Amino acid sequence: MSKSVSRRKFVQDASLSTMAIGLTPQFIKAQSNVVKDKVRIGIIGTGFRGQSHLDMLCERKDTVIVSFADPDLKMMASAQRILQKAGRPAAAEFTKGNDDYINLLKRADIDAVIIATPWEWHIKQALEAIKHKVIPGVEVCGAIKLTDCWDIVNASEQSGVPVMCLENVCYRRDVLAVYNMVKKGIFGELLHLQGGYEHDLRSVKFNDGQNGYNDGIEFGAKAYSEAKWRTNHSLYRNGELYPTHGLGPVAMMIDANRGNLLTRLSSVATKARGLHKYIVNHPKGGENHPNAKLKWKLGDIVTTQIQTHNGETIILTHDTNSPRPYNLGFRVQGTEGLWQDFSGGQLDAGHIYIEGVSAKPHQWENPEPYLKKYDHPLWKKYESQAAGAGHGGMDFFVENAFVECIKRNVPFPLDVYDLATWYAITPLSEKSIAENGQMQVIPDFTRGKWKNRKPDFGMNDIF
Amino acid sequence: MSKSVSRRKFVQDASLSTMAIGLTPQFIKAQSNVVKDKVRIGIIGTGFRGQSHLDMLCERKDTVIVSFADPDLKMMASAQRILQKAGRPAAAEFTKGNDDYINLLKRADIDAVIIATPWEWHIKQALEAIKHKVIPGVEVCGAIKLTDCWDIVNASEQSGVPVMCLENVCYRRDVLAVYNMVKKGIFGELLHLQGGYEHDLRSVKFNDGQNGYNDGIEFGAKAYSEAKWRTNHSLYRNGELYPTHGLGPVAMMIDANRGNLLTRLSSVATKARGLHKYIVNHPKGGENHPNAKLKWKLGDIVTTQIQTHNGETIILTHDTNSPRPYNLGFRVQGTEGLWQDFSGGQLDAGHIYIEGVSAKPHQWENPEPYLKKYDHPLWKKYESQAAGAGHGGMDFFVENAFVECIKRNVPFPLDVYDLATWYAITPLSEKSIAENGQMQVIPDFTRGKWKNRKPDFGMNDIF
Repeated sequence: MSKSVSRRKFVQDASLSTMAIGLTPQFIKAQSNVVKDKVRIGIIGTGFRGQSHLDMLCERKDTVIVSFADPDLKMMASAQRILQKAGRPAAAEFTKGNDDYINLLKRADIDAVIIATPWEWHIKQALEAIKHKVIPGVEVCGAIKLTDCWDIVNASEQSGVPVMCLENVCYRRDVLAVYNMVKKGIFGELLHLQGGYEHDLRSVKFNDGQNGYNDGIEFGAKAYSEAKWRTNHSLYRNGELYPTHGLGPVAMMIDANRGNLLTRLSSVATKARGLHKYIVNHPKGGENHPNAKLKWKLGDIVTTQIQTHNGETIILTHDTNSPRPYNLGFRVQGTEGLWQDFSGGQLDAGHIYIEGVSAKPHQWENPEPYLKKYDHPLWKKYESQAAGAGHGGMDFFVENAFVECIKRNVPFPLDVYDLATWYAITPLSEKSIAENGQMQVIPDFTRGKWKNRKPDFGMNDIF
Repeated sequence: MSKSVSRRKFVQDASLSTMAIGLTPQFIKAQSNVVKDKVRIGIIGTGFRGQSHLDMLCERKDTVIVSFADPDLKMMASAQRILQKAGRPAAAEFTKGNDDYINLLKRADIDAVIIATPWEWHIKQALEAIKHKVIPGVEVCGAIKLTDCWDIVNASEQSGVPVMCLENVCYRRDVLAVYNMVKKGIFGELLHLQGGYEHDLRSVKFNDGQNGYNDGIEFGAKAYSEAKWRTNHSLYRNGELYPTHGLGPVAMMIDANRGNLLTRLSSVATKARGLHKYIVNHPKGGENHPNAKLKWKLGDIVTTQIQTHNGETIILTHDTNSPRPYNLGFRVQGTEGLWQDFSGGQLDAGHIYIEGVSAKPHQWENPEPYLKKYDHPLWKKYESQAAGAGHGGMDFFVENAFVECIKRNVPFPLDVYDLATWYAITPLSEKSIAENGQMQVIPDFTRGKWKNRKPDFGMNDIF
């Protein structure tokens, strides 16, 4: 019998082990995983995303920021300044190369760690955290390889250390209102869902090594921030590279891994034109720039069809190399109506239609009155706290869930099975595209537990 | 060498044949396929769609309506009334059962025939028309089986009789304006396109046998108009049943069969809920109605991913069983911007963004100024004639192209290869869904001629 990854069980196992084999530093930490008032946190990766997490953690009275790991001294200094401004003590620093985070994880005074590093480090670092009985909150991306997804599930199940997927869009105000509507049956039985990551990232994938988000066509070693590492994925990979923002919210709506399962996918990609064009047309670029010689592998637009055990379909779009307004392109459609997003989360953008409720048959309505009426209890309660948080406030809620669940010693609402399933979309989509769009089976990372697991995301106004 | 289906070649072949084997009634008809002032037309299927064609044909001075075939005497009488109102002589009637249309086709005084019958008759009747050297204009649907698509191509190539696909949405005003923009390079190089048939047809699929489009839950023998035959396809088939309205316009934009080719597809379907729910909830239905016992095969929403030789991707959506506003859901995206439709063709609905042209970076604009600026020459010229025609005017243009091409003895802009390719989506999508979403190869119905064929749709203000 594989172990259930609940924090309650974790405590049980840890206690048993402690009795059986005696106290070690690791088991002291394990025993500390009971109901508590404050969470002692480390951050691995103090770049912009890590700093954004830090900002939010500093706003909370129930956090102790213990230590940072990052080999980038500039980013480390920025992170320390955030603590300073918040009137908090400096964090212990682990800056000695890429692997010094392991020493952070060895500390006995850390309950949990936020992993906000380049994509290829997420699973490796989360596995290391689990090894040291530190609870990882893992930033979003797609897996580098499918076995990574099994590794994190197996490690979490075997150790009893839970893992949270820090998928913030699940908490976007319109998304949570629609989730609320779904749970109240306003859309009837769900049929079809869409989401995606449609975000012109050209000025994120390239810069001049100085300013971060503009003014250059360099990437990798010559660049700054995300362009250092993110852009390489566009050069060497062709797939749905960033599935969670589009998939996470709709997966929650259909109770994936909780009475439902993602079963199969197929992906297609367009030709790759956008990044080359950007380099050639940029004032600092041109046909003769060395980067204009590169052959980019990532198709400009990648589409993925996902099937589910309960008969819904999901379409994901990855669209980051072309000029376009930001839009995650959500569509939530059931037997009684549908919502169509067309913006970056503004309540009054997009369209809605509910049979028997909408004023005129066969005519779209502005969704704002619906989204206000069904505003999620979390947003009602925390609106003012969320106001200053990143990405329009939604970042507050993902941080809140991470901290509150650890304090209460209860399971995460976005857990290791969600992380594994969502991350798995990336290598599966790459395989599908490489095989001309062949259908791929999505593994059941719960190994059958999805049949009995119950929905636990967004069920109250606490986390 | 397979024969090219151009009307010029057709005339050539016919002349050669006439010289070689002497005159027969068929070759008299064939010889008549030269430039002419009037087109002599028959209509097979005088239901509502056939009557709509008839309305438009009666508006033209260059048509002679010769004869009608339909076993439905009520519909036949309605069609004759249209002629009467137009001050035209009555048409010869062929009403003796389902096969009497063959006798219509045997007449020597018909150049062309409009086929507006139930879907399962289209190819059979078009083949019969070709056999009698009558040029078929075929209404849209999907093929019943893949071999139908080869049969119509082979018959047309072997006989030299051209075939037109009467796909009206290719001529919708916004669609033609966007086509115009595509051809002028406003969107840059095309990457990704979407379209579909998202139309709540529940009240079309069922009626009470009297009123046509409401008030009942009967279909088949007990029903009226389309519900007589269309609904059965939802009972027995699961696929992209109506691909052409979504696919035709975007296929023209990427020059499919003319330097480009649709190469592969995969389809997925949701569970089937809408039709059962409609029957159960209808005042004349309920759980105990016999139709509530039926198990509908057609998934409520069917999605199809199409790949092309030139590296674009196309997503098609078929969504006819659920409450929703009408929307063909077009998206046309290139390296320099994108248009997103969100209505039934209104110019001021939807969104557009063109890099360097749109007022603000990363922000949608209302498409109306663009669609007016790039209004297609056909609409500029024929706006007043089109005003009264069906489906917001677009029906005028498909009729116009059919008649003008026959008069001029030039190839149809939507030809037998388009018909075969678009119709083929249906059986291929059914196969894909039956195989859990497996990728299917789309045949090259041009047998390689796509490499040298040139775009000829919408290139002028004549047809």
